[in-house]
Amino acid sequence: MKHLISVFNLTKDEVDELFRLFTEFKAGRREVLEGDVALLFLESSTRTRLSFEKACRNLSLRTYFAGTKETSLEKGETFYDTIRTLSSLGFKALVFRVPFVLFPYSAYLDEGISLINAGDGTHQHPTQGLLDLYTAMEVYGSVEGLRVLYVGDIAHSRVFRSGSYLFNMYSAKVGVFGPKTLIPEDLKPFGVEMVFDNYEDALSWADLVICLRLQEERFKERYVPSKESYFSQFGLTLERYNKLKGYFMHPGPVNLNVDIDANVVYSEKSLILRQVQNGVYTRMAVLYKALKDD
Amino acid sequence: MKHLISVFNLTKDEVDELFRLFTEFKAGRREVLEGDVALLFLESSTRTRLSFEKACRNLSLRTYFAGTKETSLEKGETFYDTIRTLSSLGFKALVFRVPFVLFPYSAYLDEGISLINAGDGTHQHPTQGLLDLYTAMEVYGSVEGLRVLYVGDIAHSRVFRSGSYLFNMYSAKVGVFGPKTLIPEDLKPFGVEMVFDNYEDALSWADLVICLRLQEERFKERYVPSKESYFSQFGLTLERYNKLKGYFMHPGPVNLNVDIDANVVYSEKSLILRQVQNGVYTRMAVLYKALKDD
Amino acid sequence: MKHLISVFNLTKDEVDELFRLFTEFKAGRREVLEGDVALLFLESSTRTRLSFEKACRNLSLRTYFAGTKETSLEKGETFYDTIRTLSSLGFKALVFRVPFVLFPYSAYLDEGISLINAGDGTHQHPTQGLLDLYTAMEVYGSVEGLRVLYVGDIAHSRVFRSGSYLFNMYSAKVGVFGPKTLIPEDLKPFGVEMVFDNYEDALSWADLVICLRLQEERFKERYVPSKESYFSQFGLTLERYNKLKGYFMHPGPVNLNVDIDANVVYSEKSLILRQVQNGVYTRMAVLYKALKDD
Repeated sequence: MKHLISVFNLTKDEVDELFRLFTEFKAGRREVLEGDVALLFLESSTRTRLSFEKACRNLSLRTYFAGTKETSLEKGETFYDTIRTLSSLGFKALVFRVPFVLFPYSAYLDEGISLINAGDGTHQHPTQGLLDLYTAMEVYGSVEGLRVLYVGDIAHSRVFRSGSYLFNMYSAKVGVFGPKTLIPEDLKPFGVEMVFDNYEDALSWADLVICLRLQEERFKERYVPSKESYFSQFGLTLERYNKLKGYFMHPGPVNLNVDIDANVVYSEKSLILRQVQNGVYTRMAVLYKALKDD
Repeated sequence: MKHLISVFNLTKDEVDELFRLFTEFKAGRREVLEGDVALLFLESSTRTRLSFEKACRNLSLRTYFAGTKETSLEKGETFYDTIRTLSSLGFKALVFRVPFVLFPYSAYLDEGISLINAGDGTHQHPTQGLLDLYTAMEVYGSVEGLRVLYVGDIAHSRVFRSGSYLFNMYSAKVGVFGPKTLIPEDLKPFGVEMVFDNYEDALSWADLVICLRLQEERFKERYVPSKESYFSQFGLTLERYNKLKGYFMHPGPVNLNVDIDANVVYSEKSLILRQVQNGVYTRMAVLYKALKDD
Repeated sequence: MKHLISVFNLTKDEVDELFRLFTEFKAGRREVLEGDVALLFLESSTRTRLSFEKACRNLSLRTYFAGTKETSLEKGETFYDTIRTLSSLGFKALVFRVPFVLFPYSAYLDEGISLINAGDGTHQHPTQGLLDLYTAMEVYGSVEGLRVLYVGDIAHSRVFRSGSYLFNMYSAKVGVFGPKTLIPEDLKPFGVEMVFDNYEDALSWADLVICLRLQEERFKERYVPSKESYFSQFGLTLERYNKLKGYFMHPGPVNLNVDIDANVVYSEKSLILRQVQNGVYTRMAVLYKALKDD
């Protein structure tokens, strides 16, 4: 596993091994790697960027951060040319977050540099999928047969695309609930077992709820009429929180009182801060494996 | 002192101890701390940001810088959620500059992470106040009875709010002079002894002049009619410079020929570059104490 | 050589010595320097910025990056004041890319801090000139008598201004070809031997072609009617590539199918990736010499 662009390229053996590494790093294993890692973030981000940067430093890798307006992509350079340039500069890995879908990407993979996807458009966010899976494994012991409910903007969610595939790989059951305008017609590729019509039915089914972030753009694009109506139908209100059997997750940042009632964000049943914490170890595992397999 | 949000929370013992640390670090004391510090600067800054970053590195702390457009605050995340996220990511301290006033902030202080204010709106800029105090102590021996004159936009100045309190703590006398539109009506909370009507009276009183930066916004907001009129009434002109008994300071960056005549910015009576130099040691003292008391 | 602002300030001995250092660093020589380097990039850049940052880290120098919108230059601070501030903060070197021409600059040179130009307006880009020279020396053995053709926007090119002087210093012959609107009337200061009217004559003369990047602005400014017409007259098309006797260079990023046919960018006769690779060693040589001579 030299690259991590999509979870669809991962075998179960690889996900297993990454989980072992995750567990060891969380337990305090230390490794010293050598090399330079470029972090190219063309969308604003706090947790994913700092999580990756910290994971690199924990492994003694040198980091170079470039944000929006700071790269030649601004001058019209193609992403492929950026990758070849970084490879020639001697970088061992590129961690990238980009507003576009990286497809097809096979041409990028032969350039000597490891490519790690930290979110590309509506396509994939593989390390978020992994950290959600690993957090569930940690909390529930096993995810076999676990009923995992994704709530919100399923259609545009790279978190859902990455996570649902991984939960399926470990024999969890995946259900979805959200505005009809934001549910894809064909859910077969994602292994979705249940599509719910109301939150109450969904809640009585689910063992774990993964709330998705509703992007501001959806209002402008008229997918959703208003924040208030979204919250009352699809938000994790206090009333629904009380009915929740297990735990809930959210990839962050939370839209308070839109995705989730502000009063329960850091409550007992919330795994949000544990997700953040586990993100660092998940990324250490991914970087370690990518650079060691190299 | 795990946090430094406002100088109002500092005891004299703590300011004394920080001064001892400042002196020792300036004399070459070396300390090796471990941990990660996030520097979140939502306003542009050269000296404060680089000064903090250098202070961290001098103490062997690992730094992570995030500027405007690079964080989830852009996506509507609250500052409180950012702090909890950084704490969960394992950061030991957050140094922040933000365009809003951080108040009330007691809820932020229990999250495991040290919070160091590098300027919040018109509220506080504690390390600037400290470095101004320490520079005065260094140059004048003691500030007891020292007559300190602040000139300019008193009403909006976090430099004044932090510095005047500290100078009072050490029994200096504080006077102010500036456009009537930019002097608060009630100056009692700041321990101001003298309010001057013209620069000449103020100059014959003062031992130390602290010129403040006039923000560009004040012209748009019609507080001040023009740069030329401001300079002639409230600027440190060559003529006034010659009448100055002691030294002058400025937090930087200077508006040349608005705040101060360009020809005297780096002159004999200027402490500007010494302030910059002392800023690094002041911030080393603050970071060291915050992380050691933790 | 404490500073590197323009190649016009370099003696042949210095360029020789830098070449020796370049060769040694490329062969694996390691050096450990101490100190802090500020990288101030007010224009977006991938390769130059990361190349300098990597060069610093390879020499164990600590780096501090500031991009657009992150410095007090945004608040109207002069570049001179920024330099004095950085010097007082204890920085050993400032690497800068700025959108304006740095002239006159003699006043900046006495401030204790080494100034390294990474591109200033249309004026100079000395390390690009050096790396182009060194890459040519490496590939051709010697550049004495080598016929070097610059193609494109000669008038606005800091790459041409820096490179042509250095190639002349080593007795290469310099020719130019480009839109008449973008060729300076007086080419004597640049030691230009040949001005060509069509690409075909130029190609039969040249041993090495250096394609320049056509900036987007030139279209708006009406220097050039369209990308298509530019490419057909001044671009390195496949047909011209086949007629090319030697190699070609480009400072990057390439405008695909404007400057150069996308199919030949990384072909056999392309030195583009070697330029990128050599850039790191060139900058190590420059930083090492600047900080050692200090």
